[in-house]
Amino acid sequence: MHILIIGAAGMVGRKLTERLAADGAIGGTPITAFTLADMVTPHPPAGFSGTADCVTADLTVSGAATTLLAGKPDVIYHLAAIVSGEAEADFEKGYSVNLDGTRHLLEAIRTSQAGTGWKPRVIFASSIAVFGGDMPDVISDEYFLTPETSYGTQKAICELLLADYSRRGFIDGIGLRLPTVCVRPGKPNRAASGFFSGIIREPLAGQTAILPVSEDVRHWMGSPRATVQFLLHAATLDLSLLKNRRSLTMPGLAVTVGEQIAALERVAGPKVTALIKHEPDPVIAHIVSGWARGFDPSRAEALGFVAERQFDDIIRIHIEDELGGTLPA
Amino acid sequence: MHILIIGAAGMVGRKLTERLAADGAIGGTPITAFTLADMVTPHPPAGFSGTADCVTADLTVSGAATTLLAGKPDVIYHLAAIVSGEAEADFEKGYSVNLDGTRHLLEAIRTSQAGTGWKPRVIFASSIAVFGGDMPDVISDEYFLTPETSYGTQKAICELLLADYSRRGFIDGIGLRLPTVCVRPGKPNRAASGFFSGIIREPLAGQTAILPVSEDVRHWMGSPRATVQFLLHAATLDLSLLKNRRSLTMPGLAVTVGEQIAALERVAGPKVTALIKHEPDPVIAHIVSGWARGFDPSRAEALGFVAERQFDDIIRIHIEDELGGTLPA
Repeated sequence: MHILIIGAAGMVGRKLTERLAADGAIGGTPITAFTLADMVTPHPPAGFSGTADCVTADLTVSGAATTLLAGKPDVIYHLAAIVSGEAEADFEKGYSVNLDGTRHLLEAIRTSQAGTGWKPRVIFASSIAVFGGDMPDVISDEYFLTPETSYGTQKAICELLLADYSRRGFIDGIGLRLPTVCVRPGKPNRAASGFFSGIIREPLAGQTAILPVSEDVRHWMGSPRATVQFLLHAATLDLSLLKNRRSLTMPGLAVTVGEQIAALERVAGPKVTALIKHEPDPVIAHIVSGWARGFDPSRAEALGFVAERQFDDIIRIHIEDELGGTLPA
Repeated sequence: MHILIIGAAGMVGRKLTERLAADGAIGGTPITAFTLADMVTPHPPAGFSGTADCVTADLTVSGAATTLLAGKPDVIYHLAAIVSGEAEADFEKGYSVNLDGTRHLLEAIRTSQAGTGWKPRVIFASSIAVFGGDMPDVISDEYFLTPETSYGTQKAICELLLADYSRRGFIDGIGLRLPTVCVRPGKPNRAASGFFSGIIREPLAGQTAILPVSEDVRHWMGSPRATVQFLLHAATLDLSLLKNRRSLTMPGLAVTVGEQIAALERVAGPKVTALIKHEPDPVIAHIVSGWARGFDPSRAEALGFVAERQFDDIIRIHIEDELGGTLPA
């Protein structure tokens, strides 16, 4: 099996690549080759015995997608996007990368498959940012998409394209609306959601964290490990079960910032939580107030997607996967 | 006021132009100029004293949209599209005309307005084809968009673009999901929905009509007159009332084919309905079985959009507007 990962140098892309390389197979089928693509050249996965082609690619450039498809990959992970803050700040870049890039990929598949019988599985990283505005506390799978950002608009459009290209038989597509990743390892990115991870990650590393919103803010989160597991499960799931509803909200945890902090205190103690400083930021508070607070993920759960059940587990996963399993002294 | 109508040579475009020219004003503001554009050159409206610039334009051609906007129109009606059957038969043409054409228009507005303060109202003709699949009998305004055709997908994507361009302040947009127009005057087009009008129009003209589906098929219809009225109302409505939910389902009538025929018999007698021949067509029956059957249009009604309350009125409107007010002998 040949796997193409677009956006392989990003945090989720790297974790997915490492996990696939370590497993060496998907659903019992050996992985023989990777094509790993991103705006910066991805690193080849350690300990993988097959071919790993690591390439720099920009899907907004004409022909780039066709080049990536030369090896007729069986599974295509499309994780590449610019984040919501950047898509809001740079209107043209957001539409170019997040919409045109995806469309180029889908068109390159369609136009290069004629007569070959090749129909790849396309696993698209969507986002809960497809929802917005006045939403219920718990959003069902039949609730309409009302993005309030250009990023969310672009993701919603890509979901529609994914469904139509699947219906027409060009791809076998599935879109996963990923929860906000928490605890996101590494440094903050430009996402306004950064503090949801920062208030856990920084104190666990002995550093001060800024909390820009009130503790009653509720949000939908999942661990990096769960996110990778969603992406793996999507590669082997029988997609005929989706009928033509190709995108679905992944399971997650609806927790408040206060519940996050309480869990951190249970896991790591009050000296750690004392490192969280509340400095209200009205701009971030306003952005976050427009985000979804919770979902009914029963459709995804019925299809076998599984996430954490309590925030304590999300913190423990961060300690296991990023801090070597132990708390800093 | 300067009004641009794209798709002005189509049935709805012609009726809208005639009505606007006859009124001479929108919401009390005199209409001083029309720009009427279509793939074939539209006719200037009779009896209009202002400027009427009638042009051939293809929005899929680079620069065409910018040319249309030279006069900085205050209101832009975007009615141009290829119909569902054609968009399904020709995948590339559907995306080119129905998606790229709309995007070119929105981009041309955005890029030519810098520093001018010009922000036109854009009234977009969407469609109930944005819904599909397993739907409830009555679809609410918060039900998710699940198009099962490329045409419906393209309309749903344009709705998302319209909302984002409005939210960003580039346009003041509204999308109207028009009901199936009934009774559509003239000859059948390639739409699979043609028989809903044909079984009324042909018998009233003394001709045989083919009914390809069973009488219990239910569908959502509105008269051409109501359709024009929706478009007029959208030009003066306070769009801040929409918040960021820029597209909405227009009122209509949920009637079965059997109820259509019963109404025709009440209005025109049994000799007329005897001209309807039932010739089942499984292909058309299958297509129609995937269409929405009814809506809760309370949001549109609360905003002042009004449609017919019974199908008898739809037939009478056809007789008044298309047959000179009298039944053929």
